[in-house]
Amino acid sequence: MYAGIETGGTKTVCAVGSEGRVFARVQFPTGTDPESLADQCAEFFADHPVTALGLGTFGPCDPDPDSPTYGHILQTPKPGWTGADLLGLLSARIAVPMAMTTDVNAAALGELRYGAGRGLHSLVYITIGTGIGGGAIIRGRLLQAGQHPEMGHMLLPQSTGPGVCPYHRNCWEGLASGPGMQARSGVPAQDIADDDPAWILEAQIVATALHNITCILGPQRIIIGGGLGSRKALHEHLPALLDESLAGYLPSPSLRVPELGGDAGVVGALTLAQDHRPG
Amino acid sequence: MYAGIETGGTKTVCAVGSEGRVFARVQFPTGTDPESLADQCAEFFADHPVTALGLGTFGPCDPDPDSPTYGHILQTPKPGWTGADLLGLLSARIAVPMAMTTDVNAAALGELRYGAGRGLHSLVYITIGTGIGGGAIIRGRLLQAGQHPEMGHMLLPQSTGPGVCPYHRNCWEGLASGPGMQARSGVPAQDIADDDPAWILEAQIVATALHNITCILGPQRIIIGGGLGSRKALHEHLPALLDESLAGYLPSPSLRVPELGGDAGVVGALTLAQDHRPG
Repeated sequence: MYAGIETGGTKTVCAVGSEGRVFARVQFPTGTDPESLADQCAEFFADHPVTALGLGTFGPCDPDPDSPTYGHILQTPKPGWTGADLLGLLSARIAVPMAMTTDVNAAALGELRYGAGRGLHSLVYITIGTGIGGGAIIRGRLLQAGQHPEMGHMLLPQSTGPGVCPYHRNCWEGLASGPGMQARSGVPAQDIADDDPAWILEAQIVATALHNITCILGPQRIIIGGGLGSRKALHEHLPALLDESLAGYLPSPSLRVPELGGDAGVVGALTLAQDHRPG
Repeated sequence: MYAGIETGGTKTVCAVGSEGRVFARVQFPTGTDPESLADQCAEFFADHPVTALGLGTFGPCDPDPDSPTYGHILQTPKPGWTGADLLGLLSARIAVPMAMTTDVNAAALGELRYGAGRGLHSLVYITIGTGIGGGAIIRGRLLQAGQHPEMGHMLLPQSTGPGVCPYHRNCWEGLASGPGMQARSGVPAQDIADDDPAWILEAQIVATALHNITCILGPQRIIIGGGLGSRKALHEHLPALLDESLAGYLPSPSLRVPELGGDAGVVGALTLAQDHRPG
């Protein structure tokens, strides 16, 4: 049995399981006190003996095992969390080998092994909701170079803005996240009907970003989830728009919604633990 | 002793060496007859016994060892080369273990191990000349997912075009390659003086592309070579423009010119052979 933890911006999920199955789970608010969150996690796992633990966390975080701040949360607007040594707090309470990555990398791993990416070696997982994030598995390995990907902040050609990113204004997240879509439409993204042309424009922006991901990473498949990212109104336009954008120069990767739905992250965290088991 | 071959669009270099040093080399036109090129390579290596061979080739090519067309050149405008089984032609003539990748991935490997990337684990190598290409090493491993990167074809925000890419018009290569720069300036890029403001605009376009590479790959360093890419007039503007574009959201990777200069590719091919040696 393995332990998986997914810490999100608002909620944290702890799960016990193996081989893609979750046998027990608990969920609580992530809150503003990392010590108290670690206590709650430890309490759950005290009742569920495990041999290794995987963590997929919100960012920015440091997923570099060679870094002195491995497993820490970096500068974040989230109160109480800047500089928190999340992995250290867990290690002090739960005495098993641990591995960590970003929440979206964990979701990519979960989908690759047990979801919409089974049988593949290279995929990208994108979530589109209040923000846009991306994780990737390349040849079976998590994409974690100098720093973790921040795919949502790439810059794109069309300027249908003004986008809403406080750093880059018209980056992908600035234009195509929920708040970006709302800024264009005047209504919350979740209230936009499936037949509204706003989805065509949204799909055009997303297709351009997928074009760039294809040029830089060349994945076999791109899985697009999240509140907006899972919408049928988006997916029905995407494949043709991506083909059109790549213009035959490169084959398009296949596009899918997550098979594991909201469980992709925690199943990925369990998978990370499983891969990291001692011996 | 290892064998390294770099097949470029116009010339092919064969080298014998190890540990980043080249002990013997020969160079000939790539030409339009793959069989004859393989014969010339075999002739050179017949006089220089080697234990393994590494190939870095122009593309598009298939660098996926699990693919039935591994080592083949794919659809290309280059006469005589579409579908050529380059690695197979070499294997039939030179009986040593072989590994192959793209020319730019080979250059990235060469620079990582013996050039401007020594001591690092993750870098991107960009060449800017008549085209734009990129290769990457992530955590010591060549970036080779479903298909090799085609970074030059990513789409960018500014439209100073019209760019010259026959597929995407205003992609990075369309805007910032030599022909793209010439289309804007009216003179060949190599004739544009270092103090011409055309280099500021060129650097702005390149900085935007490096922004996207940073968001998607997060390398520790980006090495920029090639006829235009090595120009001091470009490099003196790039670091500040990249910082400005990332706007403090992410740290900028360090930027360098290749230390191995025009040898990066063939040294990388030798390194590939060295890593691939039997036992």
